Formats: sequence, C-alpha cells, structure tokens
Amino acid sequence: MRKIYVIGIGAGDPDHLTLQAAKSIGRTNVFFLIDKGETKQSLIDLRERIIRAYAHPHKRIIEGRDPDRDRTPADYTGTVADWRYRRSLVFEELIAANLKEDEIGAFLVWGDPSLYDSTIAILDEILARGEQTFEYEVIPGISSVSALAAKHRIGLNRVGQPYQVTTGRRLAEGWPEGVDDVVVMLDAQQAFTAHPDAEIYWGAYVSTEDELLASGKVADVGDEILKTRAAARERHGWIMDTYLLRRNTQD
Amino acid sequence: MRKIYVIGIGAGDPDHLTLQAAKSIGRTNVFFLIDKGETKQSLIDLRERIIRAYAHPHKRIIEGRDPDRDRTPADYTGTVADWRYRRSLVFEELIAANLKEDEIGAFLVWGDPSLYDSTIAILDEILARGEQTFEYEVIPGISSVSALAAKHRIGLNRVGQPYQVTTGRRLAEGWPEGVDDVVVMLDAQQAFTAHPDAEIYWGAYVSTEDELLASGKVADVGDEILKTRAAARERHGWIMDTYLLRRNTQD
Repeated sequence: MRKIYVIGIGAGDPDHLTLQAAKSIGRTNVFFLIDKGETKQSLIDLRERIIRAYAHPHKRIIEGRDPDRDRTPADYTGTVADWRYRRSLVFEELIAANLKEDEIGAFLVWGDPSLYDSTIAILDEILARGEQTFEYEVIPGISSVSALAAKHRIGLNRVGQPYQVTTGRRLAEGWPEGVDDVVVMLDAQQAFTAHPDAEIYWGAYVSTEDELLASGKVADVGDEILKTRAAARERHGWIMDTYLLRRNTQD
Repeated sequence: MRKIYVIGIGAGDPDHLTLQAAKSIGRTNVFFLIDKGETKQSLIDLRERIIRAYAHPHKRIIEGRDPDRDRTPADYTGTVADWRYRRSLVFEELIAANLKEDEIGAFLVWGDPSLYDSTIAILDEILARGEQTFEYEVIPGISSVSALAAKHRIGLNRVGQPYQVTTGRRLAEGWPEGVDDVVVMLDAQQAFTAHPDAEIYWGAYVSTEDELLASGKVADVGDEILKTRAAARERHGWIMDTYLLRRNTQD
C-alpha cells in the first residue's frame, strides 16, 4: 500500500518542526512540492532547508504548479471548490506518476494542516474518485496562530470565554456574534480598522527573520500597522499576517 | 537577568515536542512542576520522559502543589481569578526560592500555552506585583485541538468559514451564534448530546497510548461516546477529551 503524509511544518521557524514531523520527513521517499505562481522565496528556502536537514539522501523531489485562482471572485465558495478540483487533478497526476507501490509520499504544509489549508480535502477528493489508492496520515504543526500568541505572550481565550477564528472577508461584514476575541487570518482588506476600540495583537511573517509585531488599541496602532504592512508587502512581494482582536467583554 | 520559559509540550505524544521546545528544555536549569491533587499519572510520566530525554544532567526539578479549586462554583470567573491569584503566590514563592541570577527556569504546559492555560496570566500577575523580576518567553506547542483534527484528518474550518473554540459550559447554553463549526474543550457535561443532527469528531487522551476516537452524527454515535467516555474515566481516574461539532451550513 502506498502512503502519503500531510506534514505541518510550522509557521516559519525551522525549530517549530516537531520530532514527529522530522521523523516523518526522514521516512519519505517522494516529496510533492506544489507552488503558487507568486514568489514566496523565503518560505521555499525554509522548506528546502528542512528537507535538506531531515530527509533521506535518496528521497525524490517532485515539483508541481498550482492551477491559477481567481482572487476576487463573486462566488467565493464556488470558485474555491472549482480551484480545489483542478488542484486535485494536479495532485492526482503527480501521485500516479511518481509514487510507487509501498513508497511514502509527503506534502509539506505551512502551519497546521487543520487550519485554512486545502491539502486534506484534496486528498479526500482524490480518494473519492477511486483512481488512486493510498493511506494517508496527518502530522499536526505549529500554526501561525499559535506562533502569534506565543510571540505576544497572550492566551487566545479569556477565562471561560470562547474565541472565534475567521477571515478578513467575514470580519469586514461586522464583528462576529457571541465572541469578544477574534483571530483573523487571510485578511487582504485590513478589516480591523473598523474596530478602533479593540486591542489588536498583530504579526506578519511571524517566527521568521522578517517577523513584524505590533500591539495596542487599534485607534493608537492601527495606522502604524497599515503603514508597516504596506511597506513590508512592497519589500517582500507578499505578506502573511494574522492578528487577534480583543474587545471589552460584553457579558 | 533570570529567564523563564513557558514551554508547550504537546498533547500527549512525546514526538509532538518541537525542536524549539527540546532545545529550550536542554537550556533549562530549573523545572517547576506544579500538579493538581488529581492523579494524571500518564501525563506526569510523559513529562518525566521528556525531561529525561532532553534536559541537562545538572538540571534541578522543583515540585509544587496547586492550590485547591472549587470545580462547581456559582461565580465561575471570580473563582478562577481567585484560584489564579493563589496559584500565582505558589509560583512566585518557588521562583523566589529556587531561580538564581542568570538561570533559566521552565514551566512545561500540556498542549499549547495560548489555549485554555493560565501559566502566562500567572507570570504576568507575578511581574505586575513587582517583587520578582525575570524575562519570560513562550514556546508554542501542538494543542489537543490540532492533535484531534490531525487524527480525524479534518480541517477545523470549512472553506472561507469561521469556527469557534469554546467550553462545554458555554455550549450547554446553546449553539453559538454565527458559526457552524464549534470546537469544545473542558466539557464535563457532554453538551454535544443536545445537538443530535450535528456531526461530531470526538477524541480522548488524543495522541497517547490510551487514545479514543469516534466520529459520526451525534444521533448515531452520541450514546456510544457517552458509554466509552464513562468507562474510560472510571478506568483512568480522569479524562481529557475534546471534540469538533459541525452542522450543516446555514448560509
């Protein structure tokens, strides 16, 4: 039986790798590295560094290219489903062509595979089609959210309280019901600016050499974050930022 | 300057330890191990195994005892604040008596220190009192939530959707507003039983030798989970379980 690992490799610090991830990388015969067109060279470098450090010398590296994706679709969920389908065809072809009987393949995922990542759903989609058969296993990783909280030395929740993890797109529609603590990922629109009274704990490229951190009341630090973010995005060509917004408890 | 690490050591599998955590443990002079009265011998064994594997031979281990805590208080938040205050006095005394100038101390935290853990808040409370001075650093860990999701091979969120992390106490008051995916921690009352149409992804002692997993529609698997949970709790003397509840998307 062929096997595939979906390995969370952490959010940027090579030392965020778990022992389980390092051991799994060491057992892998074939690494499938599939990249978007965008340049995120520092992340690609980190992945290569991890493979060099922990992989078997006879491993094979197969590189693929993500299908293009419409970044501003009218039908967001439908567009993601279509992109995911096309992505699953790319993955399936790479697996069929490169993973031999009794071999182990691996996909390396930034952060934690359970958080805003499509690799698990794509493998399920491939298995559901029934053309390829394999076992697969998920290796959890340090998420960008855990890394952010650690750097700011904060808890994500307050005592006995819930918190919500959501997207910038959702936050732009209004503060979520029933929670005073909101973690925001994938925010292309800086939706925090609509909440000047909230405390923000912001980070970009967290746990990498380029890490940027800021915290305070949005009214006080929001403009500075916008400026820092724009300059960093310009400099690096991309940005990956995450934040916690915390408002005074309503109940 | 004295330094303290708050180290997330993962949810039960010793291989969930990150390289950063292992290295931090290796640099630690004094480990502060503070336990509740309850017996959780398998967790204590795991922690000892980790210290044995990665700590410096000349490290010192200081054991303390948590203050007692009212588990069924009328004023939950107030009781926790009081317990946290009494706990901070215990921590402060141990630090004052045992951590010398330029030494590194460490608290080892199950899972991730940013998730339903009080260590960070307690160190902030000690620093705010101003009697003890030290730097401190938080090392993120694999949370029981990440471990649960990995074992069930699921994402916590669905495409573009938010999810909420909450307590059993809160879920018992009703399904949270605005989310269809809810992660529940600290559920002493099995609040999932009120949601027969939801899908549950349940796990206890996740990523340990005693791991128990179950998933399906609550109407189909809920009773089995209740039985399994009761028997396991009886057998081990304690239980640590977590679950994701997922209902059909409302929007």
